[in-house]
Formats: sequence, structure tokens, C-alpha cells
Amino acid sequence: MFKLYGFSVSNYYNMVKLALLEKGLPFEEVTFYPTPTPESLAISPRGKVPVLGAEGGYINETMVMLEYLESSQKGVPLLPTEPFARAQVLAVAKEIELYIELPARACYGEAFFGTALPEAIKEKTKAELLLGFAALGRHGKFAPYVAGDTLSIADLYFLYSVPLAAAVGHKLFGLDLLAEMPKAKALLERLEQNPHVQKIAADKDAAMPAFLAMIAAKK
Amino acid sequence: MFKLYGFSVSNYYNMVKLALLEKGLPFEEVTFYPTPTPESLAISPRGKVPVLGAEGGYINETMVMLEYLESSQKGVPLLPTEPFARAQVLAVAKEIELYIELPARACYGEAFFGTALPEAIKEKTKAELLLGFAALGRHGKFAPYVAGDTLSIADLYFLYSVPLAAAVGHKLFGLDLLAEMPKAKALLERLEQNPHVQKIAADKDAAMPAFLAMIAAKK
Repeated sequence: MFKLYGFSVSNYYNMVKLALLEKGLPFEEVTFYPTPTPESLAISPRGKVPVLGAEGGYINETMVMLEYLESSQKGVPLLPTEPFARAQVLAVAKEIELYIELPARACYGEAFFGTALPEAIKEKTKAELLLGFAALGRHGKFAPYVAGDTLSIADLYFLYSVPLAAAVGHKLFGLDLLAEMPKAKALLERLEQNPHVQKIAADKDAAMPAFLAMIAAKK
Repeated sequence: MFKLYGFSVSNYYNMVKLALLEKGLPFEEVTFYPTPTPESLAISPRGKVPVLGAEGGYINETMVMLEYLESSQKGVPLLPTEPFARAQVLAVAKEIELYIELPARACYGEAFFGTALPEAIKEKTKAELLLGFAALGRHGKFAPYVAGDTLSIADLYFLYSVPLAAAVGHKLFGLDLLAEMPKAKALLERLEQNPHVQKIAADKDAAMPAFLAMIAAKK
């Protein structure tokens, strides 16, 4: 049985959790907050979550875990098998990660945890988010799923990165980054009806108070 | 025949070019500088290089292209076929990209093109590079290749990201980020003996003056 290391507040953790649930694969959740100890760094060399505990050992990096599950496990497919079609889905997922998630993440501290950030960081994020959402509008299919007519790995990135990034845009810059993307809004509503997505959201809500207390204690 | 869109100065372009050369796949190089025109954005939705022109259309994002070539083409393999072993190689490649290439890239402007950057951006890059190189030291195998005993996709990231990031560390922060990684230095020397790597370096050198002139003209 797989072990999923991390915590329910992490959006990357929830991407892999949703993949496991959608595929119907049994897994155990192991609460794991990375620290700079040898034990922790042996699980996660850069101190990141999630980590997947598989038969052969630990697997790092969300996209790598998702592709590993796809290529090694049965269950509902989240990627096409034909290489070119598969590449199209993976490219959209990667664009969401690089051009939406990562710039937004640079500002999570101020947007969600009250840590003031330098203007230079915020200006860079703002410029990159505008370009990233424009690219998603251009490359996403929303038919109705982000990369086609079935749920895929690109939807996992979309669901767990785009609303957070939109919240950063709203809170820090007064922007509605989805204003011109009605199909993206409709897809978010559709995904939120998924029972696995609802379970993950409930788990996140339940874990949030302890997480916020931990963040506050570190300040 | 594949078309590789981009330019020889781009380190990501050179990763895919090296994969094509190592695999012995015929390809044509198409000089492509992304612009915000509809024609250019149809090729690259976020205005990035490289782009791979394949039989079915364009493929974006370097890692996606590399995996596409691996799964669809014959030639020297650059990834193991067994899913867990494959995941280990991809995780190291991804860690180099996220934790070394991307923080370093935020400072390329000042390190290589004389564009002064805000202190906040540089401080963030410095902190992330120290963590990123430590993670590579922990997770890389250097046996003698970065993820094992054969050349892999992780080496493409290593070869085209790590020396640039080390140069950023040296120029902006006076750091020798490879000081405690003699095996990494030895691997760079080994890779630089590869005739395909030497051809790519020569093509880069030949293209550099025009590229620098273009950058200067934009200032």
C-alpha cells in the first residue's frame, strides 16, 4: 500500500491525494512536516511535500509521482496513452505549475499568512501571473476539462493551483485573474462537485487550525 | 523530421538539442524568438523556447518534449523503463529545474546582461540556491552520471543549468556552490568531452554576439 507523506493543507499534497482517490488506489496518509534533520532529508532531499512511499522507496516531486502512478498502476487513467496527446496534457499542467503556481507561491506568505513581502517580489509575481493566466486562457481547452474531455493531471494542477493564485491576485493586486475565463470558472464549479475533491477540502479545513497555529508559533 | 524552435543561446533549447543528438534523431533547427504576436503565441502560449515541432503539432515545455521523445522514439534511451527507477531520475531532473535553474534564472539579468536587480530578488535567489545545491548533493548519485551509471535526462538539466547557476552564485554572491561537490565537477568535465556537447557549445558561441546585440538594442 502506498504511503502519502505530507499534510492536508498543502496543495501539492492534495494533487497526489486526488490522483490516488480517483484511481481507486489504497494509501495511508502519514503526517510529515519536513525539517533539516537527516531522517527528514532522507525522505525529502529538498524538504518538500508531498513524498510518495512506494514499494521501491520514496518518490519526490508531485509531477513525478503522478506520472509514476500513471505508468505503474491500474485504475482510472489521468493521461492519454498516445505520446503526442499525452504531451499536450502534460504541457498544460507544467505551464500551470511554472507560470501560475510558482509566481503565486512567492507571495503566499503575505496573501495567506500575514508576512509582509518586499515590493520587488510582489511586482514580479504580478507581472508573471498576468502572463501565466493569459497563457492558460490560450492553451487550456476547457472542454469541459482543462486539457480535453476527461479529467487529467492538468486538472489536478488547475484545481489546486489556480484558485490559490487567483486569491493572491485578488488580495495583493485587486485583480480578477479569471474575469475573462468563464469556462475556467465553470470547470472549478464542476470539480468542486466531485466527492473526492469534497473529501480533500474537508480534510484541509479540519487540518487548517493546527497548521495556522504552527505557522504563528514560528514567527 | 522534427523541428526544434528556439535559439542556440538558450540553455533549455540545448537540453532538447542534446537529447535529439544523443538519440540520433534527425531534426531541423528553426530560429525562433517569441513575440506577443498571434503567430508566435500559437507556437508557444507563454512565449518560451524551445518548442518541438512534431508530426502532430507543437509540443511545449522542455521536460514534456524530453519525455515525449523518450516514449515515442527509438535511439539511445535517456530514462530507465522501469517506473520506479524512471521516477528517481525524473525527480533529480525536476529538483535541478525547480531548486537550481529557476532561482538562478531570476538573476540571469544581472549576472549575464548587466541589468541591476532588486536586493530582495537576489537575497531570495541566494537562499534558494544554497538549499538547491545542498539537495543536489544529497540526491544526486554522480556514479558517474547525476542519477546513475548512464547518461539520462537528469544530466541534461545538470549540464545546462548547474554551471549557469554556479556562475550566478559566483558573480553575485561570491559563492562556490560546487566547492563541496567534487564528483559534480568531475561529471561536468566528463560531459564537456562529449562531441555533441562540444558541437552545441560551438553553436552557442557562434550565436552569442548576435544575441547580446539584440539584448542591448532592447535596453
